[in-house]
Amino acid sequence: EIIKFKVGDLAAVGCLVDSCRTCSSCKEDLEQYCLNGATGTYNAKDPYLEGRTYGGYSQKVVVDEHFVLSVPENLDLAGVAPLLCAGITTWSPLRHWNVKEGSRVAVVGLGGLGHMAIKLAKGLGAKVTLFSRSPGKEQDALALGADKVVISTDDKQMANAKGQFDVIIDTVPYVHDLNPYVQTLAVNGTLVLVGYLGPLEPMLNSVPMILGRKSVAGSLIGGIAETQEMLDFCGKHNITSDIEIIKMQEINEAYERMLKSDVRYRFVIDMASMKG
Amino acid sequence: EIIKFKVGDLAAVGCLVDSCRTCSSCKEDLEQYCLNGATGTYNAKDPYLEGRTYGGYSQKVVVDEHFVLSVPENLDLAGVAPLLCAGITTWSPLRHWNVKEGSRVAVVGLGGLGHMAIKLAKGLGAKVTLFSRSPGKEQDALALGADKVVISTDDKQMANAKGQFDVIIDTVPYVHDLNPYVQTLAVNGTLVLVGYLGPLEPMLNSVPMILGRKSVAGSLIGGIAETQEMLDFCGKHNITSDIEIIKMQEINEAYERMLKSDVRYRFVIDMASMKG
Repeated sequence: EIIKFKVGDLAAVGCLVDSCRTCSSCKEDLEQYCLNGATGTYNAKDPYLEGRTYGGYSQKVVVDEHFVLSVPENLDLAGVAPLLCAGITTWSPLRHWNVKEGSRVAVVGLGGLGHMAIKLAKGLGAKVTLFSRSPGKEQDALALGADKVVISTDDKQMANAKGQFDVIIDTVPYVHDLNPYVQTLAVNGTLVLVGYLGPLEPMLNSVPMILGRKSVAGSLIGGIAETQEMLDFCGKHNITSDIEIIKMQEINEAYERMLKSDVRYRFVIDMASMKG
Repeated sequence: EIIKFKVGDLAAVGCLVDSCRTCSSCKEDLEQYCLNGATGTYNAKDPYLEGRTYGGYSQKVVVDEHFVLSVPENLDLAGVAPLLCAGITTWSPLRHWNVKEGSRVAVVGLGGLGHMAIKLAKGLGAKVTLFSRSPGKEQDALALGADKVVISTDDKQMANAKGQFDVIIDTVPYVHDLNPYVQTLAVNGTLVLVGYLGPLEPMLNSVPMILGRKSVAGSLIGGIAETQEMLDFCGKHNITSDIEIIKMQEINEAYERMLKSDVRYRFVIDMASMKG
């Protein structure tokens, strides 16, 4: 029996299709941190059927309604798709670390995650700064809602940014030095890693952390209730991802472009192209 | 005009004797993070007089009453002295990270800071575990109020401790690998460094941090209001530091013993010995 949906409702499935529903994380609506292991929508071991999950590459998918989201009717569907991953991945830490009207938020890196972090932090009323290595992204960042861009390769700009931010969402997906960003945290500030998984090289220095009660943390996508909250928020504030729609036949070219960061800011595959 | 004290009151001065009183940190009762630089009680540049502050080695000290604490009458004064440093250094993160009845707290290292962390966390109603490298400290830890000791060099004990703790107070004053302790944090847990200032070597791995929304943070002593709160709490719960009183003439021997961790758990100098 389905309670949350009726035939014809706009529904979406995000990064998770299942979790144990009984552990302490699941009971706190943190299915992404399920202690018994949540089932990912893509390439996860399917606990009910043989084989693996195929996510959006499937022709149909059977999912418990607990893991199905309602999509606001006013939003462009293709632009909604990345909200279920890049959107919730940045929304969850913004909410967990209490970003609100007047919060000082910085975003490291302007890609799929970074552009959503700017839009969502701005939507929450924060003052948003983008850290970027290249001056070329300034116009884009301002157009997306950033109040300011700090060029992280410019020592003077970095020195001026010291002690400024309550929360930094670091979306960079490769190893990089966190120490210059920790310096830009205010007292009690937190830098949240959402993109890079691995050893923090060069070594993180504890001195500024101790002298300003600063934290370095990590965060993974978001829970189901929180994902619904994010979608509802996006509906209310008319926020979607900036996307480029491609046909399935263009996937190899798109992959090569993605490797060169040549995408603003997410590719979305039109599955109807499969029939063409 | 003195408002907080009258002649004959028991008063104490902690690690701070001054701060700007106007910056955002000072206004939030976080004088230890004063953006204009707080004045330490020991070996800090004196902003009013020439030279440096001498702390407890002074014969008298003039301090604005804002930086003077009231000492509960029921406590042993020599045992109170370390509360103003080791006590508040562990109290502040316990309170900031919301340790309360039923919280699962671990303490890394059993020295001056560590033994206070155990007593204070226990006083707050937490379930307290000590991580220690040497089995020899087990009886001491239990006597101080710990519920359990995990020998950190024992792989099996460490594996059993995975995902257990809401807050870890890491008091170790030299460089050490944090990764095994991060593994023992529960989802949303925080490891707080209070002892070691420097680069985190070997490198911290972000993977468990992201997969469980875990944080690594630092914390420095505590604010004045919080220090008073800690003293009042200690008065109520009859908590003091375990100390060994020495004469000033024994300072060199005590210093050598401290280097060998041969002190349970703080030396306190009887200043009357100066006259002897």
